Amino acid sequence: MRLLVKDMDIATGGPLVVILNEKDASFLDLHHGDRVKLTKGKHKVVAAIDIAETTRSVSPGKIGLFEEVLDRLHIQHQTSPKVKVSLQPKPVSIYHIRKKLDGKELSRDEIYHIMEDVTQGRLTSIELTYYVAGNYMKGMSMKEICSLTKAMIETGDQLKPRGKLVVDKHCIGGVAGNRTTLGVVPILLAAGLTVPKTSSRAITSPAGTADTMEVLCEVTFNKKKLQHIIQKIGGCVVWGGSMNLAPADDLIINVEHPLSIDAEGQLLASIMAKKGSVSATHVLIDIPIGKGAKIESRKKALKLKKRFEELGRLMGMKTFVVITDGSQPIGNGIGPALEARDVMWMLKNDPRQPLDLRKKCVELAGILLEITGKARKGQGKKIAEEVLHSGKAYKKMWDVIIAQGAKLKVTDNIKLGNHTHDITSWKTGKIKSINNKSIAKIARVAGCPRDKQAGVYLHKHVGDRVKKGEKIMTVYVENKERLQYAKKIFKVVNGIVIGN
Amino acid sequence: MRLLVKDMDIATGGPLVVILNEKDASFLDLHHGDRVKLTKGKHKVVAAIDIAETTRSVSPGKIGLFEEVLDRLHIQHQTSPKVKVSLQPKPVSIYHIRKKLDGKELSRDEIYHIMEDVTQGRLTSIELTYYVAGNYMKGMSMKEICSLTKAMIETGDQLKPRGKLVVDKHCIGGVAGNRTTLGVVPILLAAGLTVPKTSSRAITSPAGTADTMEVLCEVTFNKKKLQHIIQKIGGCVVWGGSMNLAPADDLIINVEHPLSIDAEGQLLASIMAKKGSVSATHVLIDIPIGKGAKIESRKKALKLKKRFEELGRLMGMKTFVVITDGSQPIGNGIGPALEARDVMWMLKNDPRQPLDLRKKCVELAGILLEITGKARKGQGKKIAEEVLHSGKAYKKMWDVIIAQGAKLKVTDNIKLGNHTHDITSWKTGKIKSINNKSIAKIARVAGCPRDKQAGVYLHKHVGDRVKKGEKIMTVYVENKERLQYAKKIFKVVNGIVIGN
Repeated sequence: MRLLVKDMDIATGGPLVVILNEKDASFLDLHHGDRVKLTKGKHKVVAAIDIAETTRSVSPGKIGLFEEVLDRLHIQHQTSPKVKVSLQPKPVSIYHIRKKLDGKELSRDEIYHIMEDVTQGRLTSIELTYYVAGNYMKGMSMKEICSLTKAMIETGDQLKPRGKLVVDKHCIGGVAGNRTTLGVVPILLAAGLTVPKTSSRAITSPAGTADTMEVLCEVTFNKKKLQHIIQKIGGCVVWGGSMNLAPADDLIINVEHPLSIDAEGQLLASIMAKKGSVSATHVLIDIPIGKGAKIESRKKALKLKKRFEELGRLMGMKTFVVITDGSQPIGNGIGPALEARDVMWMLKNDPRQPLDLRKKCVELAGILLEITGKARKGQGKKIAEEVLHSGKAYKKMWDVIIAQGAKLKVTDNIKLGNHTHDITSWKTGKIKSINNKSIAKIARVAGCPRDKQAGVYLHKHVGDRVKKGEKIMTVYVENKERLQYAKKIFKVVNGIVIGN
Repeated sequence: MRLLVKDMDIATGGPLVVILNEKDASFLDLHHGDRVKLTKGKHKVVAAIDIAETTRSVSPGKIGLFEEVLDRLHIQHQTSPKVKVSLQPKPVSIYHIRKKLDGKELSRDEIYHIMEDVTQGRLTSIELTYYVAGNYMKGMSMKEICSLTKAMIETGDQLKPRGKLVVDKHCIGGVAGNRTTLGVVPILLAAGLTVPKTSSRAITSPAGTADTMEVLCEVTFNKKKLQHIIQKIGGCVVWGGSMNLAPADDLIINVEHPLSIDAEGQLLASIMAKKGSVSATHVLIDIPIGKGAKIESRKKALKLKKRFEELGRLMGMKTFVVITDGSQPIGNGIGPALEARDVMWMLKNDPRQPLDLRKKCVELAGILLEITGKARKGQGKKIAEEVLHSGKAYKKMWDVIIAQGAKLKVTDNIKLGNHTHDITSWKTGKIKSINNKSIAKIARVAGCPRDKQAGVYLHKHVGDRVKKGEKIMTVYVENKERLQYAKKIFKVVNGIVIGN
């Protein structure tokens, strides 16, 4: 059957889909989700069909094509050539997904097929949702998680830095501030390790590492440019989303989001695939625990630690998991610019630096120095502190910033929001707790992560004494209107408990 | 935020969806599947968002609206007014779906919310898929199935015929031919029962009851017209899809199709909701078993029977389940016109009638006569046979056909495909088996159900003796090209075993 192309003028963002009028679908005996092969000259593509029940969207004799399909057939936009349409069996990975729903373990090949089809746009979002639902409800064996991790790596681009010791770290998150990556990376680089760090932007938090680094320099690079930077400096801190590393992961996250599903196996595979994609040999995972952090109980953290270590072993990556205190924000600034300033002060040994952040960076860097053999057992922390104190890490940080296209020349040029509001203590006493989620909420309402200069600066931490009327935190906004809103939100969420 | 409407010129066929450019989505802190409320004058609608990553589909400052959303906002097609966009929480039913995924039983209210949101387009297909996956993998308690059935009925239109005894029947399917509804309905009508029969069209079979009835008369009516017909004749045989009976069911079937999922609980609810929607008081369910039928084992059929009876009890419908022989096609004709002819011959007591079909119709009608009290126990079959033999059922069938807009005046006017091909026996012996799926496949290749005059006529049944060269079946086609294809397919699937 030959049909006239209608350019639908939409991208699906993944799945290859075409629209047929119900008359043509019925003639071809096709239903929602069935596959057709389209041929235009020497170009071919297989796509899933959607059915238009009215003639308005797609009339009989026509076929509606989305951007991804048009591109694959090399059809100019806004032209209407004819394409040949023929039936095509469904991709075999659908039967693997069905097998998972029926509670059976999938083989490495089966999982690879699914990931390949996901990244090639061969599965519809409904089909991918079934796979995610299957993994969530039936769980995944460690063998399956390992196969999934490998498949996600292999179906994307991979960075292959030259160094023998390639280090990566990851924090499970949920702790406001806590910008340890920007402290740890320059220490490790100064110690001679290779650290091709790809980071994420904030999704639900006030700032991701990539957002914070972006205050200082560019974070979006193509693979070639990035490999050049890594070769020159030994590492980088860039936004992972700009490259095609484990692209299946992002597509899976898209269908997890509507139900806020976060299956443990998927989480493990997602994190370790990013590490594998940059060819990490040594990996440190930081699991902060505490009220308001992503993982609240030590028991859950210990279980997760074990699983990470096992997966690391199966993947051939030396993986060390540390459970840290995530009961309150770490560092003083929360928000991209405020966090960047904290980090730079710390690297510079500036007296205004947050000591809790420094302590944590030294600990994490110390572990990585020890597991890579750059420090003897028990000496990692000492060496990390030396590197930091000597200013070598600070220098290395500037090397990275300059290689990535510096946005400023000196640390003091970091701009903060023009409008501020101080929140002062309503009583004299001792800070008993500071809730991560509440502080993150205030920072987001202030404009984070989009407004990089917005955020919250904490003048006090848990255990500090405070007098009535003394500043506890300062809210920074770029957009003055947000100030009122941030004040209101503070009243609702507050998040700070002061005892006697 | 106010955005300019872009008419996307597509209907989604259900879910209310809008497209934002990623810049605007990021400004509003929105992700795939989050909800926004759109306001245009006094009209409001809540929709899920999709994010355009390029500016081509939807550029910043614009919002792409699909047909369903445009209609609800009363926006003229191809105009570009501004609409107000504000954040909206996700529908609460998403949390119920999440609860089901976590293995917890849903309450009647929770299931009702989900069905209401499904029918109102408030859930995206990804969210609905999670619900279907949850039911499939975790199963449903009988209480949940009953809640689902009731919710599907209540969120659609309902027929409320006047009669006290409202009868319905359903066959689980998978047996070629087997057009018993068209035999049973006129017998029951002639016996004074009310039979508001809504039927389906073929999806994967060569003919549905609605396709077959459509050979004789119209089958698409609105609710008002249909109520008029039922009041006049006592019943009808129409296409259920033309009315809004249990519309949630069709939307669920759409997301089941891609993985060919058919959860038992969903099957029960789907069938019984259609019965409840026409206010049936007495229901007969026919479960044919045998190789190639939908249910192959007696054990599975018995389990299903028990569940149907229990659900019927909970729904307040007297439900009787009969397990029948589905090991071979029933009747001689397979395909809409051929099946219609078989039925009319049978009702007319024509010597060319298929006796196996007659026997089954009499049995099924007999049961319904007994459970409604129209016949004493053990007398149902006898009375059914009398009604049939007397010609009263035939007369009643013509009443229905005429009330529904007859397409022909006499039975012999039923047209069959112009081109035929006889398949003859390759040996002398006895027919050992005829596979339903194979015969259905040949009939579909011949053009069924779209080509109503196409199909297969069986000259022999299991147990019949056949001589080498004697006709076993005749294939009818409207489109001569299909004949070659049907011959080829016969060689591949064959489906007839001849013993000595």
